[in-house]
Amino acid sequence: MPFGYNGKILRVDLSKGEIKVEEPDEHFYRTYGGGSSLGAYYLLKEMSPGVDPFSPDNIIVFAGSVVSGAPVPGFARSGIVFKSPLTGAIADTQAAGYFGPELKFAGFDAIIVKGKSEKPVYLWIQDGEVEIKDASHIWGKTTGEAQDTIRTELGDERIIVAGIGQAGENLVRYACVLNNLKHAWGRLGAGAVMGSKNLKAIAVRGHRKLEMKDRETVLSIARHFSSNFMKESPDNRGLHDLGTAQYVMGQNEDGQLPTRNFQTGYFEKAENISGERMRDTVLTKREGCYACSVRCKRVVKADSSYKVDPAYGGPEYETIGMLGSDCGVDDLVAVCKANELCNKYGLDTISTGASIAFAMEAYEKGIISKGDTGGIDLRFGNADAMVKMVEVIARREGIGDVLAEGVKRAAEKLGKGAEKFSLHVKGEELPAHDARVKGHLALMYALSPMGADHVQAEHDGAFTPGADSFFADRVEPLGILEPLELSSIDHKKVRRFFYFQNVFGMVDTLTLCLFAFAPCRYFTFKELVDLVRAITGWEMSLWELIKLGERKVAMFRAFNVREGFTKEDDWLPERMFEGILTGPRKGQKVDKDKLREAIDLYYEMVGWNEDGVPTKGRLAELDLFWVAEELERQAKYKK
Amino acid sequence: MPFGYNGKILRVDLSKGEIKVEEPDEHFYRTYGGGSSLGAYYLLKEMSPGVDPFSPDNIIVFAGSVVSGAPVPGFARSGIVFKSPLTGAIADTQAAGYFGPELKFAGFDAIIVKGKSEKPVYLWIQDGEVEIKDASHIWGKTTGEAQDTIRTELGDERIIVAGIGQAGENLVRYACVLNNLKHAWGRLGAGAVMGSKNLKAIAVRGHRKLEMKDRETVLSIARHFSSNFMKESPDNRGLHDLGTAQYVMGQNEDGQLPTRNFQTGYFEKAENISGERMRDTVLTKREGCYACSVRCKRVVKADSSYKVDPAYGGPEYETIGMLGSDCGVDDLVAVCKANELCNKYGLDTISTGASIAFAMEAYEKGIISKGDTGGIDLRFGNADAMVKMVEVIARREGIGDVLAEGVKRAAEKLGKGAEKFSLHVKGEELPAHDARVKGHLALMYALSPMGADHVQAEHDGAFTPGADSFFADRVEPLGILEPLELSSIDHKKVRRFFYFQNVFGMVDTLTLCLFAFAPCRYFTFKELVDLVRAITGWEMSLWELIKLGERKVAMFRAFNVREGFTKEDDWLPERMFEGILTGPRKGQKVDKDKLREAIDLYYEMVGWNEDGVPTKGRLAELDLFWVAEELERQAKYKK
Repeated sequence: MPFGYNGKILRVDLSKGEIKVEEPDEHFYRTYGGGSSLGAYYLLKEMSPGVDPFSPDNIIVFAGSVVSGAPVPGFARSGIVFKSPLTGAIADTQAAGYFGPELKFAGFDAIIVKGKSEKPVYLWIQDGEVEIKDASHIWGKTTGEAQDTIRTELGDERIIVAGIGQAGENLVRYACVLNNLKHAWGRLGAGAVMGSKNLKAIAVRGHRKLEMKDRETVLSIARHFSSNFMKESPDNRGLHDLGTAQYVMGQNEDGQLPTRNFQTGYFEKAENISGERMRDTVLTKREGCYACSVRCKRVVKADSSYKVDPAYGGPEYETIGMLGSDCGVDDLVAVCKANELCNKYGLDTISTGASIAFAMEAYEKGIISKGDTGGIDLRFGNADAMVKMVEVIARREGIGDVLAEGVKRAAEKLGKGAEKFSLHVKGEELPAHDARVKGHLALMYALSPMGADHVQAEHDGAFTPGADSFFADRVEPLGILEPLELSSIDHKKVRRFFYFQNVFGMVDTLTLCLFAFAPCRYFTFKELVDLVRAITGWEMSLWELIKLGERKVAMFRAFNVREGFTKEDDWLPERMFEGILTGPRKGQKVDKDKLREAIDLYYEMVGWNEDGVPTKGRLAELDLFWVAEELERQAKYKK
Repeated sequence: MPFGYNGKILRVDLSKGEIKVEEPDEHFYRTYGGGSSLGAYYLLKEMSPGVDPFSPDNIIVFAGSVVSGAPVPGFARSGIVFKSPLTGAIADTQAAGYFGPELKFAGFDAIIVKGKSEKPVYLWIQDGEVEIKDASHIWGKTTGEAQDTIRTELGDERIIVAGIGQAGENLVRYACVLNNLKHAWGRLGAGAVMGSKNLKAIAVRGHRKLEMKDRETVLSIARHFSSNFMKESPDNRGLHDLGTAQYVMGQNEDGQLPTRNFQTGYFEKAENISGERMRDTVLTKREGCYACSVRCKRVVKADSSYKVDPAYGGPEYETIGMLGSDCGVDDLVAVCKANELCNKYGLDTISTGASIAFAMEAYEKGIISKGDTGGIDLRFGNADAMVKMVEVIARREGIGDVLAEGVKRAAEKLGKGAEKFSLHVKGEELPAHDARVKGHLALMYALSPMGADHVQAEHDGAFTPGADSFFADRVEPLGILEPLELSSIDHKKVRRFFYFQNVFGMVDTLTLCLFAFAPCRYFTFKELVDLVRAITGWEMSLWELIKLGERKVAMFRAFNVREGFTKEDDWLPERMFEGILTGPRKGQKVDKDKLREAIDLYYEMVGWNEDGVPTKGRLAELDLFWVAEELERQAKYKK
């Protein structure tokens, strides 16, 4: 490996107030890459099984990757890896924006945080210098107030702040972390873990440049992206024009827009919360991430039914699906307001919307009443109730305190059959994609180590008919040569899911943007390989890249096995086996027998034994024999 | 897949005298590629388990690949796939020379031969036209006489003839097939299967050109090879200068040159049979294969102790090792003569040498005597005896009839402990590489679906110290980032073997030359991918290419499972667990416990269950679910 990747990893022990820097060798960097895999490495190596996610012994890793900071669209992401307070499983949550590149410019690939500070603190990292600073004065503040204060007191408006709001401080189990107030590491409670450690924020500023082996190739591929992304497909143009909200209408027309807690997939008022409506009413600006020309992020402003602060961005498709249709709400301004509040308090919009939708169904079914809700009329479609619920969840007030635990724990607490419509996998709430329609998604939700995660692999698992030539260089290099039926769950679908999960695992390891790098999106595999080679100087191939992803999946599974997760946890919520109530997909549901068969096949494919434990041979193949040794120590292999 | 690969496959039923042509679709070609995989496809699909290899129901497939015929060094090979009369397992044997490209120019990717002709015949294929022609007049003739007659009667001296000699007619179980009299499909008895079908030869002539998507890229990479191959490394220069015989001295100096039936790895007179000695004495010319500038093939001539006909080429390293040192013979001219006779009669030089060495040890141990040998004094080192034995084996005379069955059957017949020094795996004789020295080779011999095959993966499984920079782009793209100790058998070695086996499986599927394309040889993976893309127009990646190899391994294993092979067959001959008797490696042996552990690990890695049956999930991943269904039908999966 002649080029020489020289990276640094920052270690912070908040209990001891200790800061250390280590410099792993190239073998480490090339094997673990960054993001989800790098995080999993430290969690498996340095954390014991059974740790309470809110205990000081939980480890939280903030990681870019070996390619972070390259001036290429799609390289702006970074991941946070930790043991989730929502699921008890390993979690990786990724955000774009500016944090990952800025951390690299400040000299670090990753930050590993352990322990718990006695009083609120924030980390200040600038050009290799690191300080643990008092945060007592910003504790209890919104993300926006905290960011303003930090920037002002450090005297630099360009500092990138990754911070939490009151939800994280209050240990809402799905509290998130945001950078620039609108790029969310959304899912699984990273914000709550920061809160549990009294860590309010990480502020970063860097002035170093990324060394690259072949700068010209990198820039040339980046320029090609910038000149062609919008021309490539209507989907790409839509991403700029409408943001991810472009999918609202299509999803609804195909009967798969989650509506009223997934009772149906057709929302009669979808148009009111569509991307087109947003563009034509509240949209004021399109924003992007580091080095990216697409500007798929929304900025919205309103002063009608609600006053919406543009500083917190605008809603994504997931946010609209969960806080809008899934709550039966068709008031776009209300959705924008709820989005603003989620970003202010630091709440995952998906789990927040899912929890409110769950509560609405419980309310309509008479399991909870106005007495429980503090007088809120919590029926589906009540926009005002929805917005109020965001506040009470963030503050853990009344019913909000119950819902702050997530739908799994809330259903257990409420009882009376609420579990039947508590839509989660392993404790993680379902996002705005319906596994009854997309067979690929049924596998993804059931088999993701993280729970009901919609970015573990692509959603569809099918070619878009007629678009084969566009996909040739984006899917075929995996050896996937034929279109599949959208809702099927058969051996071909399992294969495709397995391959795509590995690709997405690689994308999350290199902390790349899915819109640029996931298969079927913009970049071809060939360009990705060329980029990684040109940046790192390593003789990498698509083979090695996909193995990065396989390694991630194996490490995540191994972590969960160690925590006691078993095959029984790999399953879907009951509603997925019940027919969709209305719309074009009426009656459609997941076939239990086919799903069981597919899961068994997947276990063999991915190299897990009957108990769902990655085999020693499989781990050895992935250069993870040390993980097999750890599972052996933990007596996870039957004799 | 927009370019459109239009290939043709020729089907010949010798029992019915029927000729058919079929045109599989692109999905087929891209999934099975050619060579070993294409052959395995037909054997699994169209042959029932339990067929006697010499029955008309055995299928023999002659196959180039989708890239055959491209004017690139290393693209000259083709494979013959069949059920081996030596092992009862599936066999693939590959030869370079001219047959594969010529078959493509004549319009075909492969020929599938079934049935048995009533009388001797040969096939005549010219530019899409096919004829079954009488061969009664060349039956009983040497390969050379047959080739001359065919070329003369068809009136074209440039016809490529793949033919058998008397050994194939006499069903010597390791009879081979040769093209141009010196390029041998050597191992496992393809010649005997042709003999059993009364098929003397296949004569081919073609004038079509290979269509290529991007001819310029192909030519430019080919030119780069031709200009640089020799400069790249001493090993490459040696290949031209000394042929594969360049390895004799190095192997001996490291104590791993098989000597006297593998009793030792040090031959005191190795210099006399070295590549250097050949160059300085009998070598008259260097010859190459289609489109290749290396000319690693030898032409030798002698008229001293023996008269050696240059038409049959000169000995390779394997030939020298097996007919020379392994027989204790240091007379190079005798080795050249034995090589000539093997090529004349159509005998595999490796199994022939191994069988003679076995017989010599039996003779020295008193298990056989002059009474059995027809008066031949069969001690180690008797060059004359060695040469005579080649003749009696080809003709199945006396002891030759016993040895024509291979060492496994011969040892069973002789009894008296002969099995202890009968060196074979699954019935295939060990070639001239010692598994006691090379840990990688211990895995390869034990685990190859074909038996003791030295080209299932690389021999070493270790970087050559100090040569890391040369290997960076040749090994690292697989994710193999560190040097391994030569003799180790641990999890890292298993991983490396698994990866290399898959690469070699791909090389044998695309019928590429190992000296050009095996990892650590000339071409980088990047160049290989570029070549395949430029020739086929398919958006292929290294990922897809390596999956070709995995698919091959899986199909070969599935075939053997169907034939009743089990885990017990995956093991080494006893001698490999006994110390080497003399030389620098004295006392070195394979550790049984480590080997057992490594095999168990490999099973998990490759995706075989405890019984050694490829799992359904693994087969589904390789787009081979139909193979799982077949194994299910054959009740190979326990309930």
